[in-house]
Amino acid sequence: MSISPDGVPVLGVVGAGQLARMMHQATIGLGIELRVLSTSPVDSAAVVLADSAVHVGSWDELDDLLAFAAGCDVVTFDHELVDPAHLIALEDAGHVLRPGAASELFAQDKRHQREQLAAAGFPVPRFRTVETADDLVAHGDETGWPVVAKAIRGGYDGRGVWMVDDEAAARALVAETSADGVQLLAEERVELAREVAVAVARRPGGEQVAWPVTETVQQDGICVELLVPAPVSEELAEEARQLAAAVVDHVGGVGVVAVELFVTTDGRLLVNELALRPHNSMHWTIEGARTSQFQNHVRAALDLPLGSTAMTAPAVATVNVLGPEDGTDPRTRLAGALAIEGVAVHLYGKSSRPGRKLGHVTAVADDHDTAVTRARQAAAALTGQDLS
Amino acid sequence: MSISPDGVPVLGVVGAGQLARMMHQATIGLGIELRVLSTSPVDSAAVVLADSAVHVGSWDELDDLLAFAAGCDVVTFDHELVDPAHLIALEDAGHVLRPGAASELFAQDKRHQREQLAAAGFPVPRFRTVETADDLVAHGDETGWPVVAKAIRGGYDGRGVWMVDDEAAARALVAETSADGVQLLAEERVELAREVAVAVARRPGGEQVAWPVTETVQQDGICVELLVPAPVSEELAEEARQLAAAVVDHVGGVGVVAVELFVTTDGRLLVNELALRPHNSMHWTIEGARTSQFQNHVRAALDLPLGSTAMTAPAVATVNVLGPEDGTDPRTRLAGALAIEGVAVHLYGKSSRPGRKLGHVTAVADDHDTAVTRARQAAAALTGQDLS
Repeated sequence: MSISPDGVPVLGVVGAGQLARMMHQATIGLGIELRVLSTSPVDSAAVVLADSAVHVGSWDELDDLLAFAAGCDVVTFDHELVDPAHLIALEDAGHVLRPGAASELFAQDKRHQREQLAAAGFPVPRFRTVETADDLVAHGDETGWPVVAKAIRGGYDGRGVWMVDDEAAARALVAETSADGVQLLAEERVELAREVAVAVARRPGGEQVAWPVTETVQQDGICVELLVPAPVSEELAEEARQLAAAVVDHVGGVGVVAVELFVTTDGRLLVNELALRPHNSMHWTIEGARTSQFQNHVRAALDLPLGSTAMTAPAVATVNVLGPEDGTDPRTRLAGALAIEGVAVHLYGKSSRPGRKLGHVTAVADDHDTAVTRARQAAAALTGQDLS
Repeated sequence: MSISPDGVPVLGVVGAGQLARMMHQATIGLGIELRVLSTSPVDSAAVVLADSAVHVGSWDELDDLLAFAAGCDVVTFDHELVDPAHLIALEDAGHVLRPGAASELFAQDKRHQREQLAAAGFPVPRFRTVETADDLVAHGDETGWPVVAKAIRGGYDGRGVWMVDDEAAARALVAETSADGVQLLAEERVELAREVAVAVARRPGGEQVAWPVTETVQQDGICVELLVPAPVSEELAEEARQLAAAVVDHVGGVGVVAVELFVTTDGRLLVNELALRPHNSMHWTIEGARTSQFQNHVRAALDLPLGSTAMTAPAVATVNVLGPEDGTDPRTRLAGALAIEGVAVHLYGKSSRPGRKLGHVTAVADDHDTAVTRARQAAAALTGQDLS
């Protein structure tokens, strides 16, 4: 890592969404200079940063990426959408990417991830590359219907994932996605007891810390609730931590790496997804852990010592704040949420649209039930829902 | 309080030092718009805010204050230096100040504060207004030498306070300060067991929350270390909380009000100073309390419900980071401090000058000794000191 002449590092973040916004918030105290490559001057992070720290440009244009990286000592990311070839070009030009291009590919290309992890012996759902509709049908016949189809690139928050009920649906889907140029991966549909995530912060030299295992509650493919510590046995939690640590080492991630895991009804763990950046499954760490994922991501990216991941309370719950149907802006409804004990509110500075992820609330408590109840009440208060 | 047409409040902060910087950091999640009146574009808070949120102007010019307030729903402060007449003019023009001009005067004018609190029956050191040198001499003769002289306006961090040993020194001091137009207050020199602070966040309607009693360790009149909870008996702590609550109600403060108290060697509490804003005695609340003073100051100013002031750990210590003699910038020495367990670093984005307050570090631990040791080690690491 080259450090600016005055010795104060400049960290560039490609993307200026809520993750970059919370990175800025978490690292103001470190006194480092954080810059963002933002698609507009009013992105979530851009509006809370000095204009000189906001480089307006496209993460899809290599020239913009190169110009941005030229002003940074280290470049990191708030999403995994940059073209892998651009990442390699940045590294070839001598820029320091954390995570690097080879690691980032595990989050960008589901086939690469599945093939590499399976070859290394990590447990993953049974999968098959879909070249033709016959492949998807064969996978359904072999692993049972419905079968899961996933876009190899670009899917998130429920987009790019399909539950396919039968052969006819499989052929229709492949016809449609092929026409759109979307490549698919077929996966067995796993019988789930629950989903959990383990996030690790890892420095370039390999030093790691992990936060406690987190239950992620999904609705329509979107993570809507977090519960920490996850209500699993200590044995399973330890297995999850060891699996995540080994996966992250294999991937060579630097910064925060979130490993999303399936817990099957018969008690096995399977790797579901990887995110090589701060992840919404770990937003609870802002209040619920001694060091947040955002601060440790920045520390890891700058190769600084990592902070404690211990919890600050026995139980923590986080609930996403999605834009209500009537278009109400949660920023106008803060009072109801803040009146609830133990609650912290995080709004991302985005205009309200139905279903849009506008923020999250975290509640700490002495037990899970209280934490979840508080967090749900706060989210409902912000969006004008009636929970009764 | 008038609220912007879109219902999202705009909070203006007069001053853009580290307190405004940490207010911004603490309230990004609330999604409100925070603006600062900054003397330059590179003040501590200005460099971490969008340019549109930074109004460059002077807090000493009524026109600048009026122009700034015109864009805000509520105006608050990061210092108490604004001319009291300007504050009254702002209120007369219809602007909402929190705290208001009448309350703010308690922090701006030490004679007003002493006279008002004494008249209301609150315990304060014996004091006397100094019109001529004879008054200071008489106070020394009456309460014992050395006697304390304080500038009625404008003193802080050890400036504006003098220990006066004898009559000759008293006459010399009054000659000097009179020539500078500085008005003095004489105070008895109190035999101190320790100094403590109690901070309260208070809403316009009177709702209050208080953080645990904090010991403030002073060196040359500058607060250099904080220890929480203060090592005093539960009876004394309760007495301190009740005293602070009553003082803050009397003053009518809105936002955070820090009440600095003397604990005398014979076990009495005396009110020393008031600050009607977030205060350096409460910086530990960022990590050490469920809700920081910065977030509760903003909530109180906007008349939003206040957050829990409970501690997140059994013991917390904070140590100031002062610019080292050799001019080293602590931002270049983060690694040593972050390697210490339980430590959080807050640097204020200021250039390094010997003795300048550049930041603080907070350490949480299970006991006081560990917390203090960690915080001192971290501060030493940032400034290149050798503690051994």
